[in-house]
Amino acid sequence: MKTSLDCIPCILRQTLDAARMVSPNPTVHEQILREVLRWTGDMDLSQSPPELAQRIHRRLREITGLSDPYRALKERTNQAALELLPALRAEIAASNDPLITAARIAIAGNHIDVAIHSQITEQDVLQAINEAFTAPFYSETEKFHHFVETAQSIVYLTDNAGEIAFDRLLVEQLPRERVTLVVRGSPVINDATLEEARAVGLDQLVRVIDNGSDAPGTILSDCRPEIRHLIDNADLVIAKGQGNFESLSSYPANIFFLFKVKCPVAAEHIRQPVTTQVLALSLAAPA
Amino acid sequence: MKTSLDCIPCILRQTLDAARMVSPNPTVHEQILREVLRWTGDMDLSQSPPELAQRIHRRLREITGLSDPYRALKERTNQAALELLPALRAEIAASNDPLITAARIAIAGNHIDVAIHSQITEQDVLQAINEAFTAPFYSETEKFHHFVETAQSIVYLTDNAGEIAFDRLLVEQLPRERVTLVVRGSPVINDATLEEARAVGLDQLVRVIDNGSDAPGTILSDCRPEIRHLIDNADLVIAKGQGNFESLSSYPANIFFLFKVKCPVAAEHIRQPVTTQVLALSLAAPA
Repeated sequence: MKTSLDCIPCILRQTLDAARMVSPNPTVHEQILREVLRWTGDMDLSQSPPELAQRIHRRLREITGLSDPYRALKERTNQAALELLPALRAEIAASNDPLITAARIAIAGNHIDVAIHSQITEQDVLQAINEAFTAPFYSETEKFHHFVETAQSIVYLTDNAGEIAFDRLLVEQLPRERVTLVVRGSPVINDATLEEARAVGLDQLVRVIDNGSDAPGTILSDCRPEIRHLIDNADLVIAKGQGNFESLSSYPANIFFLFKVKCPVAAEHIRQPVTTQVLALSLAAPA
Repeated sequence: MKTSLDCIPCILRQTLDAARMVSPNPTVHEQILREVLRWTGDMDLSQSPPELAQRIHRRLREITGLSDPYRALKERTNQAALELLPALRAEIAASNDPLITAARIAIAGNHIDVAIHSQITEQDVLQAINEAFTAPFYSETEKFHHFVETAQSIVYLTDNAGEIAFDRLLVEQLPRERVTLVVRGSPVINDATLEEARAVGLDQLVRVIDNGSDAPGTILSDCRPEIRHLIDNADLVIAKGQGNFESLSSYPANIFFLFKVKCPVAAEHIRQPVTTQVLALSLAAPA
């Protein structure tokens, strides 16, 4: 997905929010905002939004001298999410379609970032999950079942901390020996890295690797070469979150995108309204 | 009111909306957005938002070659608003406090710009007005009565087309011979100029002058010198709309601001929540 003109004001809003999240210093807020204004004034719009976000968050870490400014937040979110797993696991077991119920919960986890604030509690996470269950759900259920049942190799691209605890529930419904789970290579925003995957025990269930990149999405040219190879040879790719959608929406692979549609630009690309929770095969899939 | 960092993403959003309003050409949209990104990257934040808006809309008129791209829209809005005057005038006459009721209707007119689209109808205007009447109203009623009753000279600074038809109803409640009504010097967005003031018959009621400026607010250094003189010597200034608030909020004059609070930055300055309709004496008033 290219960066739309509509993305620009939104990216600037997010820049300011992020700057305030990682630093109390107004000079830092102004400095990064001005730098991003100049970058976007000259930017190549054929880039996807995560490419610009990668640059912004690198620069924020550079300015603040903090290599992982969201670390404490990620830990708290993961912890809060983990507390909810036993109850959700029972709900999945009791449901008519455990695979889709688990997928829906994993997508619900993608709501957590709307609730991000530094004092996030289990209650906040539970509220995000409950809200997610009342949102519209667009699901290509049969197709997803078919892919899961027949795939010899599955690549699972994760998104945020917190959300990754719920990914565990979906992974538990997959043929684990065929799954490779991919996390970000190093910290960016509250995205999950190896550390967060281990914190929720995913490394005990499936093969987990990092993609070598600090983009909040999957920019293949920025990932270690193995990642493209894995995706090209996977029968099924499960890609969580809008960042992965934005960076892979036109890549010709059998990718199911699982995310909450958070803006009109993504909505137009996925052809579903904003706030919809989507479980859908990529329109660029060769299959 | 200085430009806050929070204003920047919002101004960029408005730039894009305005570009799409005045031109169907995506190249125009991208060109103006990139220019504004570069300007704001280096801008002096001690300027008020209308100063940047003035520059943006000048440039948009230059790029499109249209000296008054909102002209047809202004005419339609004025026409639709005029149709409603007899009923509203009767409502004012029947009310317990005709001055405040007329003021409230004049502020309600400030809601019309949220309903702006090229096919605006009387129904749209009526809906905006009705919505305005359900919004919270913060009114320094007694103070306003006192100023109106004792002022020997009143300056009335108008805002948008459409809204200016409702301003007529408030002007009808004032001692007309003491009133000078000031409109923008030349077209900017849908702001009222001499043409729109005449279209609603205000020139038949009071002295009407233009401020010589094409800013969507009252930037005194950009107005003809007479305007500052008028304001400095007025016992009461009635300033309509957020643009006039943004440009005059710290000017030491007896200014009553009448507007709908449209954003958190203005809300913080006026100390009232967003969506509140305000009728309040300036915090910088010497009186």
